Amino acid sequence: MEKIRAAIVGYGNIGKYVLEALQAAPDFEVAGVVRRNPNDIPAELQAYPVVDHISKLEKVDVAILATPTRQVEHYAKEILALGINTVDSFDIHGGIADLRRSLDEVAKAHNRVSVISAGWDPGSDSVVRALLEAMVPKGITYTNFGPGMSMGHTVAVKAIEGVKAALSMTIPLGTGVHRRMVYIEVKDGYDFKDVAAAIKADDYFAHDETHVMQVESVDNLLDMGHGVNLVRKGVSGKTQNQLIEFDMKINNPALTAQILVSVARASLKQKPGAYTMIELPIIDMLYGDREALIRRLV
Amino acid sequence: MEKIRAAIVGYGNIGKYVLEALQAAPDFEVAGVVRRNPNDIPAELQAYPVVDHISKLEKVDVAILATPTRQVEHYAKEILALGINTVDSFDIHGGIADLRRSLDEVAKAHNRVSVISAGWDPGSDSVVRALLEAMVPKGITYTNFGPGMSMGHTVAVKAIEGVKAALSMTIPLGTGVHRRMVYIEVKDGYDFKDVAAAIKADDYFAHDETHVMQVESVDNLLDMGHGVNLVRKGVSGKTQNQLIEFDMKINNPALTAQILVSVARASLKQKPGAYTMIELPIIDMLYGDREALIRRLV
Repeated sequence: MEKIRAAIVGYGNIGKYVLEALQAAPDFEVAGVVRRNPNDIPAELQAYPVVDHISKLEKVDVAILATPTRQVEHYAKEILALGINTVDSFDIHGGIADLRRSLDEVAKAHNRVSVISAGWDPGSDSVVRALLEAMVPKGITYTNFGPGMSMGHTVAVKAIEGVKAALSMTIPLGTGVHRRMVYIEVKDGYDFKDVAAAIKADDYFAHDETHVMQVESVDNLLDMGHGVNLVRKGVSGKTQNQLIEFDMKINNPALTAQILVSVARASLKQKPGAYTMIELPIIDMLYGDREALIRRLV
Repeated sequence: MEKIRAAIVGYGNIGKYVLEALQAAPDFEVAGVVRRNPNDIPAELQAYPVVDHISKLEKVDVAILATPTRQVEHYAKEILALGINTVDSFDIHGGIADLRRSLDEVAKAHNRVSVISAGWDPGSDSVVRALLEAMVPKGITYTNFGPGMSMGHTVAVKAIEGVKAALSMTIPLGTGVHRRMVYIEVKDGYDFKDVAAAIKADDYFAHDETHVMQVESVDNLLDMGHGVNLVRKGVSGKTQNQLIEFDMKINNPALTAQILVSVARASLKQKPGAYTMIELPIIDMLYGDREALIRRLV
């Protein structure tokens, strides 16, 4: 079997888990890792080429972008133009349709495939939301996040004056309403009460129930577990009260990385263009003989 | 907007709910109903052509097969050969791959699409099982059914001597193990204990925990609600203990009918051939502008 050669672009938290997911996948091999400093080679990368530009890697079928979300478009365009598929977990919900348009054009021009926003939300949650609408077209879907660390909110807290270290946890209260539990270390010379008030006044927190607590060590609280509870109640045809729920408790970067690898596989089976996960047949994400998968899963 | 013209083939329990789902869908119109006795026209069918053969209906885009599962292959082949897409909810798990092969050939020969086994299990549960494997490739998935009426087991009880009326309920005990709660009316001249023993000895029941109860009226117990609890615990990449759960409490024929209508829509967007639901992009099952769906759901 000829293996799929995948490059990891960006070697932060997600990139490290992508490496593990590629190593665990029977049909992939690691073509190499692209990072800003290619001389920074931790033990687990010794066996692979580490370079500062993807063009220095040989025969890459698909690039898995593990870069910050705002750099996805730039890298994806450049890599598609080199004739390499891309997958990413771009997660700014309001920007997804525009990114898809922009990458669709580049992908088609170079006869390649790009799968965007492939993590768990956006990503597998999006697939579940779409499936629930196919089953129950009328009704309300609530996506409840947590308990788990919010990257965006944590970054917002860290930007506030007087904050030395921070963690913002998202706590689901149901019906898509969330509580923010913010744990901070305060810099010397700052008053906790003032800092807490500034956090609560920030636009990231002003609209939610927010609790700010001072702790000795934020680092001691860090855990990459996260959760989702996705609920839909609605109408199939003319029949009311159809109740469906999707629930998960997962390691956040590990799941994102696994989904990136699964859609990287699917990218090789699509016509040129850019896709979100709800546009892909799920079977294309799986390893194995198509008919055997149908026998086992359908 | 040109509406999709759908025919309902078979007008039993599922067929009645398919009619409602078609009426509720903004992009469908009912081309007519095919049933053995076309003179049997209940009030809700007065507005539609009711015929004994689909060739008597005009301009049918897709036929929704609401026939007994064992007649699906026969009808699907005949209707595909007439140049009409078919969808069905064929539910004999062991026969799905063979049915797909057989219909794939006929569908391709006539340049049409057939979507098979599109109900909730097989069907939407299959999509969830496939998605969970894309997220968590290693591990065990348990599909727990119920509480709800099992059609197959109920038919099996009715076939036993001395049974006047019967209902077999499936009760989930977790990890895919089920209890059977069997409610029967006993024919005059038969002893309940003998009948109960015969039921428990039947191959349908011998392998499960089975309780048989005698009741005054089985009809008073009938309810078309059903449930599923689908659980997977496993490994993403090399990360253990990823926990995912899918749960639903639904009206059984209403959900089956809605899914049939949603995949009927999707059938018009596929290349010729036969498909199971895990082979279809979910977005194709939904009504509405593609980019608007992506903005709302991804």
